[in-house]
Amino acid sequence: MRGVMMYGPGDVRVEERADATIVEPTDAVIRLAASCICGSDLWPYRGAEPLSVTPQPMGHEYVGVVTEIGADVKNVKVGDFVVGSFVASDNTCEICEAGYQSRCIHNVMMGSVGTQAEYARIPLADGTLVATPGQPDADLLPSLLAASDVLGTGWFGAVAAEAGPGKTIAIVGDGAVGLSAVLAAKHLGAERIIVFSRHADRQELARRFGATDIIEERGDDGAAKVKELTGGYGAHGTVEAVGTQESMWQAIHSTRAGGYVGYVGVSHGVKLDGLDLFFTGVHLHGGPAPVRRFLPELIQLIWDRTIDPGQVFDLTLPLEGAAEGYRAMDERRATKVLLTL
Amino acid sequence: MRGVMMYGPGDVRVEERADATIVEPTDAVIRLAASCICGSDLWPYRGAEPLSVTPQPMGHEYVGVVTEIGADVKNVKVGDFVVGSFVASDNTCEICEAGYQSRCIHNVMMGSVGTQAEYARIPLADGTLVATPGQPDADLLPSLLAASDVLGTGWFGAVAAEAGPGKTIAIVGDGAVGLSAVLAAKHLGAERIIVFSRHADRQELARRFGATDIIEERGDDGAAKVKELTGGYGAHGTVEAVGTQESMWQAIHSTRAGGYVGYVGVSHGVKLDGLDLFFTGVHLHGGPAPVRRFLPELIQLIWDRTIDPGQVFDLTLPLEGAAEGYRAMDERRATKVLLTL
Repeated sequence: MRGVMMYGPGDVRVEERADATIVEPTDAVIRLAASCICGSDLWPYRGAEPLSVTPQPMGHEYVGVVTEIGADVKNVKVGDFVVGSFVASDNTCEICEAGYQSRCIHNVMMGSVGTQAEYARIPLADGTLVATPGQPDADLLPSLLAASDVLGTGWFGAVAAEAGPGKTIAIVGDGAVGLSAVLAAKHLGAERIIVFSRHADRQELARRFGATDIIEERGDDGAAKVKELTGGYGAHGTVEAVGTQESMWQAIHSTRAGGYVGYVGVSHGVKLDGLDLFFTGVHLHGGPAPVRRFLPELIQLIWDRTIDPGQVFDLTLPLEGAAEGYRAMDERRATKVLLTL
Repeated sequence: MRGVMMYGPGDVRVEERADATIVEPTDAVIRLAASCICGSDLWPYRGAEPLSVTPQPMGHEYVGVVTEIGADVKNVKVGDFVVGSFVASDNTCEICEAGYQSRCIHNVMMGSVGTQAEYARIPLADGTLVATPGQPDADLLPSLLAASDVLGTGWFGAVAAEAGPGKTIAIVGDGAVGLSAVLAAKHLGAERIIVFSRHADRQELARRFGATDIIEERGDDGAAKVKELTGGYGAHGTVEAVGTQESMWQAIHSTRAGGYVGYVGVSHGVKLDGLDLFFTGVHLHGGPAPVRRFLPELIQLIWDRTIDPGQVFDLTLPLEGAAEGYRAMDERRATKVLLTL
């Protein structure tokens, strides 16, 4: 089968790889209907983090049809169209039951599988995959694929930021996750949604998703603008969807004392001074999003065409064009790239 | 009037100070019935943080009788016996209304007033002071005084750790705040309360307050013990009541993914690595405790003799003996010192 491999920074190739097969009785194999490139794939592409193996199979987002199941799999069957999270989970341990499937005691990071490929082995299929109500129309594919990571991650960020009626929510980051957080905050009923963005096209999509205010300033200047817009108090909650030192403090300082910061940008070089944090008085919660918690609801919202998160994809390429997709995202010519199969 | 002044590390004196008087129409003056020495008073005593002025009036915990009120004060009257928080607050701004009075937009840290004294000026009296149902019996004084800071701080830590029925709560720190957190977790219905302690007398009080398990190991060894006691998962919530790098990570690593860390130890030299924190998946919330939020309930529980937090005081001295009180706490001969007036 064909799949994407990264050999080092800037070096992405589409190659023949060993076929995906059942290894454990709890596995399923799916034929991908679409895959995509994640902002987090850019960290090793830019040399900002090492590869775990060389070459490394890439990709952790996926939708597709089940082609084979292991002997113990009961919740999905061959032929089902499924969506899964970027972290495989048993969905039965106490951590999963509390809604933190991404930290399941048996979790498997799907990045180790590599879903930018024709087929993929899905570990813990019963706890990981959610079948759609039927075979989806083609125009739903981008949105269902978004649910696999960026939508679910933005959703978790908005939930962690306690977005809800009467609330002012700020969003740091105008990438696919930040934009998904806008959509989530709107759906959760936030009254005012303030987005930090300097890109006209992303500002426009943010407004379409529900943003009420756009701030172009960054860092503490940006946070000061949020305070100015909120009677000096700051946002009730803020989603951090970047992962740098500046963006993290921008999020914390945009939030009022007692408010909520949901941080979902994978932290790179972030150091939080304990005393500074102490006096902000915010709630800080984040980490790898437990997308599986939200999948049934998100799939239904997409199926009913209530939300259209697939709009975050602004470049579509065949799997064989993956290298160009990485370049386009690296050079910010694309927000998020969908790979067709 | 007599009051405690700190001239530098290890140098505490009781001296004549200018009388407390009404400055703003929102002020009250109280005659202290008792005051005490806080663990946080030891930081400058040990040279671990600078004095804000030299000499510095000391103390921020207080109970007493109102002797004078400003023209705008309506909620308390001369003769009332009152308890207040270590942070004065207007109790009307949006931050106060959300229950974060310690971060009130008009907050005044009572440490700048210095309540280890015969009298004290209380700013924002209407929003800060809570009158008891009547003049208290003498044996209630220690508990009412504890409510002014350590009890309310431990309570906030336990609430931030989401202590409640069915929950396992770990407590890092066996000082007066940590012990108060044990009492709070018990009152809030926690099923299992695990306390880290190496001191027999504090272990004994912890058990009296509701601790079910004691762990003597510290750091990651201590956290590993909590995991061992909880089926490999970790505590549902943990209170951090020390404020060092080791204690902070001990608390975080004692907590399961998706769990809650309430940190109320004033951070000294704590640096949190963003990526490490990201993958723990915990909720982190803390800061200067909004004691005012809890005061009406805590006063009633004490008045009804439902709780007896005054047991955290294990040395009582007259105000004139303050220097010996500081020495006893510094040398760990006392957990918490009450100063009589």
